[in-house]
Amino acid sequence: MTIKISIDCMGGDHGPSVTVPAAIAFANREPECELVLVGLEEQIRAELKKYKAQSHSRLSVVHAEEVITMDDSVETALRRKKKSSMRIALELIKEEKVRACVSAGNTGALMAVSRYLLKTIPGVDRPAICTILPNQKDGPTYMLDLGANVDCEPQHLHQFALMGSALVSAMEGKSKPTVGLLNVGEEDIKGNEMVKQTAALLRADHEKGLINFYGNVEGNDIFEGTTDIVVCDGFVGNVTLKASEGLGRLVKSVLTTEFKSSILNMLGALIARSAIKAISRRLNPSRYNGASLLGLRGLVFKSHGSADAYGYEWAIQRAFDAAKYDVLSRITTTIAALMPPPEPIPTRLEGTASPTGPGLNIDSSQIASPQQKTA
Amino acid sequence: MTIKISIDCMGGDHGPSVTVPAAIAFANREPECELVLVGLEEQIRAELKKYKAQSHSRLSVVHAEEVITMDDSVETALRRKKKSSMRIALELIKEEKVRACVSAGNTGALMAVSRYLLKTIPGVDRPAICTILPNQKDGPTYMLDLGANVDCEPQHLHQFALMGSALVSAMEGKSKPTVGLLNVGEEDIKGNEMVKQTAALLRADHEKGLINFYGNVEGNDIFEGTTDIVVCDGFVGNVTLKASEGLGRLVKSVLTTEFKSSILNMLGALIARSAIKAISRRLNPSRYNGASLLGLRGLVFKSHGSADAYGYEWAIQRAFDAAKYDVLSRITTTIAALMPPPEPIPTRLEGTASPTGPGLNIDSSQIASPQQKTA
Repeated sequence: MTIKISIDCMGGDHGPSVTVPAAIAFANREPECELVLVGLEEQIRAELKKYKAQSHSRLSVVHAEEVITMDDSVETALRRKKKSSMRIALELIKEEKVRACVSAGNTGALMAVSRYLLKTIPGVDRPAICTILPNQKDGPTYMLDLGANVDCEPQHLHQFALMGSALVSAMEGKSKPTVGLLNVGEEDIKGNEMVKQTAALLRADHEKGLINFYGNVEGNDIFEGTTDIVVCDGFVGNVTLKASEGLGRLVKSVLTTEFKSSILNMLGALIARSAIKAISRRLNPSRYNGASLLGLRGLVFKSHGSADAYGYEWAIQRAFDAAKYDVLSRITTTIAALMPPPEPIPTRLEGTASPTGPGLNIDSSQIASPQQKTA
Repeated sequence: MTIKISIDCMGGDHGPSVTVPAAIAFANREPECELVLVGLEEQIRAELKKYKAQSHSRLSVVHAEEVITMDDSVETALRRKKKSSMRIALELIKEEKVRACVSAGNTGALMAVSRYLLKTIPGVDRPAICTILPNQKDGPTYMLDLGANVDCEPQHLHQFALMGSALVSAMEGKSKPTVGLLNVGEEDIKGNEMVKQTAALLRADHEKGLINFYGNVEGNDIFEGTTDIVVCDGFVGNVTLKASEGLGRLVKSVLTTEFKSSILNMLGALIARSAIKAISRRLNPSRYNGASLLGLRGLVFKSHGSADAYGYEWAIQRAFDAAKYDVLSRITTTIAALMPPPEPIPTRLEGTASPTGPGLNIDSSQIASPQQKTA
């Protein structure tokens, strides 16, 4: 079964000089993929030629005359650049021509255009960004939201937890992945009001057997692998992720400087090169590149803007796996099955529930459609 | 000039077995200090004996019969354990018998008891916790708040920025240290409402020449050393700090595992041992131990609960330096000079300012007193 993925070749700091070789490498390695390269045709063809891949049977090119830059506002991306590579790559999902899309472009624009074109899954108020981080158990910790939502309400975090749970269940083959709520302490009394109310919602789900809620986790638990999933609002998630990237770069710079500081240290590093290589591999942020935009009726993956071809290839890999393991229909089904009866949460807490409140009204005919679309 | 510091010997995961040897080591290295060891006398004397320091001329013991545990609530610490080592160590500041206090005890209790006994500096609504982190420029980045305030208003972050600025100015001898506001992007339009309003307050101070406000910074800037000070609310700060600690432990564990994974790697590590030692020194979290509780009318330093004697000694060093460089009077003066005329911020924004509003009412006789107290 071939899985088709569109690549926004113009996104990111390096554009086609990174995205095209990454696509070629992935296509050469994965016989079940077909990649649609979207962007300025001339530039893409020049890159393909450089790597002698002009006539690769599983690489095609779709021209897009506009490019969304890192500085473009969401407004510009949505209203002024209707022929951008990002938008055309996403439209291919909507037109059911591809099953997923990868872009290294402006995150705000990618989220806004994706949301506008694809809409959200029934039961999801706001999409979230989810990525993986390495942990001490040598496995991935999935963390969301990472910046799509800087102001959240408890019901949003609740939905993030459910979506994350479905994602990990599909990608890692775990039937009941553990969910931790990021907080300033483990005890129930810790944290701000938003976190406390979210914990109450998640505990209720846990009691119903709908989710495997571990409880509060702290910052260090992300890298200890205490839970499979760590849920937080987009402000906290974004700052934490970027701080970790910054610390990672500091560590790399200290290691490089010190191992190059004398002939003896260089010799030692040469002798222990298999250790150095393993360290570099295990801590290489490129291996963790490729964040999912969860909650949309389509699979959209965001690569880091500064990713190199190796990192970008990982983002394509994640998109491919997500399509292969049918993440979209799993999330749709999970959200539908796990969400409380269709009524807004505050109403329910006040005891004035309406059986068909707005927002969470789930129409089963709609639930099936994303799955069919991407099948 | 001798600087006296009280040590809450019972605080932390290890109590006197860590705090007493750390105090002895510091006293042996710093002839201008005098340390008052507070806690269960028998245990402290046993430790002193172990290190043959029973009759050290600059170490004295003050008995305290109660111990605040990590699980004790703030309530218990404040109302039930009035003879705790933590409280007695802090009372010594109030009684002007010492100039600073160090504790590795329960952070919530330490903040509550300090605040109750010492009160806040005029113009400061809420104290904040400030620590240093390593950066790529091989200098410290000061970050606050780290967990004292999980729900903040813009005026609180504003005060944190002013206090941080005064602290760095004193500790690092920089006349105009740069202040960054932690956000999800550099642009002014990024972030939540709280951050945007804080930025407006800090920009106004910058225009008046009262503070060197750099603008928004992102998580990675903490470790890049983009600014001397990074300001955030206690929720974000706590999570970021703990995530960094977690990542640090992950890196350490990967390095250790890989360099021990074969004879060749062990040999390489042995040959490059000066590099390994330098790496371990530069990234050792113990070197950054010792957070200040800023905004109180007294110098209180918090050691990490799990600190070893080496780390605890660093916390004592920071308390000593803060007293030596007269951080308290500098913060008091800075806050007094930099704070807007005495009126609460919301009132001013609504144009109904009262010249002597509550909260920020500064009485110049009060401003002088903390300095005199600790002189």
